[in-house]
Amino acid sequence: MNYCFGVDIGGTTVKLGLFEFNGTIVDKWEIKTYTENEGAAILPDVAKSIASKMEEHQMKKEQILGIGVGVPAPVADGIVNGSANLGWKYKNVKAELEELTGIKVKVGNDANVAALGEMWKGGGQGNKDLIMVTLGTGVGGGIIVDGRILGGFHGAGGEIGHLCVNYEETEVCGCGGRGCLEQYASATGVVRLAKRRLAKNDDETILREEEITAKAVFDAVKANDAVAMEIAEEFGRYLGYALANLATAVDPSVIVIGGGVSKAGEVLLQYIEKYFRERMFFANAKVQFALAKLGNEAGICGAAKLIL
Amino acid sequence: MNYCFGVDIGGTTVKLGLFEFNGTIVDKWEIKTYTENEGAAILPDVAKSIASKMEEHQMKKEQILGIGVGVPAPVADGIVNGSANLGWKYKNVKAELEELTGIKVKVGNDANVAALGEMWKGGGQGNKDLIMVTLGTGVGGGIIVDGRILGGFHGAGGEIGHLCVNYEETEVCGCGGRGCLEQYASATGVVRLAKRRLAKNDDETILREEEITAKAVFDAVKANDAVAMEIAEEFGRYLGYALANLATAVDPSVIVIGGGVSKAGEVLLQYIEKYFRERMFFANAKVQFALAKLGNEAGICGAAKLIL
Repeated sequence: MNYCFGVDIGGTTVKLGLFEFNGTIVDKWEIKTYTENEGAAILPDVAKSIASKMEEHQMKKEQILGIGVGVPAPVADGIVNGSANLGWKYKNVKAELEELTGIKVKVGNDANVAALGEMWKGGGQGNKDLIMVTLGTGVGGGIIVDGRILGGFHGAGGEIGHLCVNYEETEVCGCGGRGCLEQYASATGVVRLAKRRLAKNDDETILREEEITAKAVFDAVKANDAVAMEIAEEFGRYLGYALANLATAVDPSVIVIGGGVSKAGEVLLQYIEKYFRERMFFANAKVQFALAKLGNEAGICGAAKLIL
Repeated sequence: MNYCFGVDIGGTTVKLGLFEFNGTIVDKWEIKTYTENEGAAILPDVAKSIASKMEEHQMKKEQILGIGVGVPAPVADGIVNGSANLGWKYKNVKAELEELTGIKVKVGNDANVAALGEMWKGGGQGNKDLIMVTLGTGVGGGIIVDGRILGGFHGAGGEIGHLCVNYEETEVCGCGGRGCLEQYASATGVVRLAKRRLAKNDDETILREEEITAKAVFDAVKANDAVAMEIAEEFGRYLGYALANLATAVDPSVIVIGGGVSKAGEVLLQYIEKYFRERMFFANAKVQFALAKLGNEAGICGAAKLIL
């Protein structure tokens, strides 16, 4: 039997998975990410963890097809040029991990790799042309074209969160731009929209009774709270319009929505899809929307799929 | 010696080229496109033309690596589902032309194929990640990712002309949408912008002295006509902002501008690049702009590159 490893390196933990060549997950586990000293220990720790797992399962190196790795940074040719989350400066991830393990390594950006995972085993299963948007603290994204990650020349392909969707915005995004999708469609973005809306007038809403979170907003939408529904419309307009343009460019068969905000479920898709349909190019009329299914496992699955 | 054919099927003429395997153009010629009877004669005419050219050059079928074809329609898996320019309804271009010639055929959308041509031998030479925009009667586009056309699931990838860039637009685009890039950045779009500007007030401009064309506008820009420069700014803003978002998604190394409007030359790039830089994602800071170089030959070159 042949196997591969999928490794999802995050700023707090590294998630690892052992996969059979047919895609079955044999084992999964986590180790802590030590970012001290420019993250020097991260790859050696990954290598050690993989070695001990191979010992535990009594596997030989010849049985391992490769190690797929997702990292929170742009990646080109296996090389990262700085990752704030990991403390890395220049880091040839592919070469270093291959040196440490003696096993073939492929590396991708974590959001792109998660998109590949959702294509393979998640909300986009059965598709080869996919856009994935991850609505978390920020807005991440991945574009899959004909089954392959659109990585981009600088390794920054699929940076959907930084599409400009509002040229009038005065507040600055984390990237230095203004009007980025992330400023409206992330968890914090939804809170921003909500606070702006609540400040506008005194309209009654259950949102005034508790701490405002993206979850609270969509819970209120489900309870037919009129103000919350206005906020959801604005959220849907920004995201739906942006996705319509993105689909005009990349012509996917499915758009997968993931991340913490997507836990609101189908109601979220309705708001996004409404505005998408309003502005989509006619050739994209059959594009499907789906919720992500793999949650935290998307990363290790997509990383394994880099190999399988 | 091995060869291939590059075929660019347009609504008026079919352009054909004979290429050596190393890319040298050995011969190029045109035949008329007969669109009557749902364009039934087009592929047989292409096949006959290729056969007689092979005879002329005393080539054997075994020497021909393939026939690459660009068509003015979305193409998926070698199949076209309707082309207004050619009269085609459903047409399995790949299968029919392979049947007619006994030679392997690959088919792509003409704008995408032209982008591939410009990557190979034109303004984008040396790059593998490229966005091409063709500013003609309409706005066409092609996206090349890692050396391959981003064709899309429905064969409609790279439809850059139909990115929505103005959500306030009331006039309808040919595609049925409103606010498409094509409405501002095509030759007719520039004329539209100019007419709107001239109607705004009585400011003096040489544009009032002649028929307004895109060429006249950019000629006036070169003559430092203040009103024409305002129009160019608006053109540059629409196109530059759209390309900034597109680059955020696909992360190219170069953006190539072609089509009739691009004959204005470097001045055009200045207006586009100014607004691109204003709104680009920081990872795209090194994206280069270039003018297309191949003109009418981009199509046959790109078609040949599908094979080579």
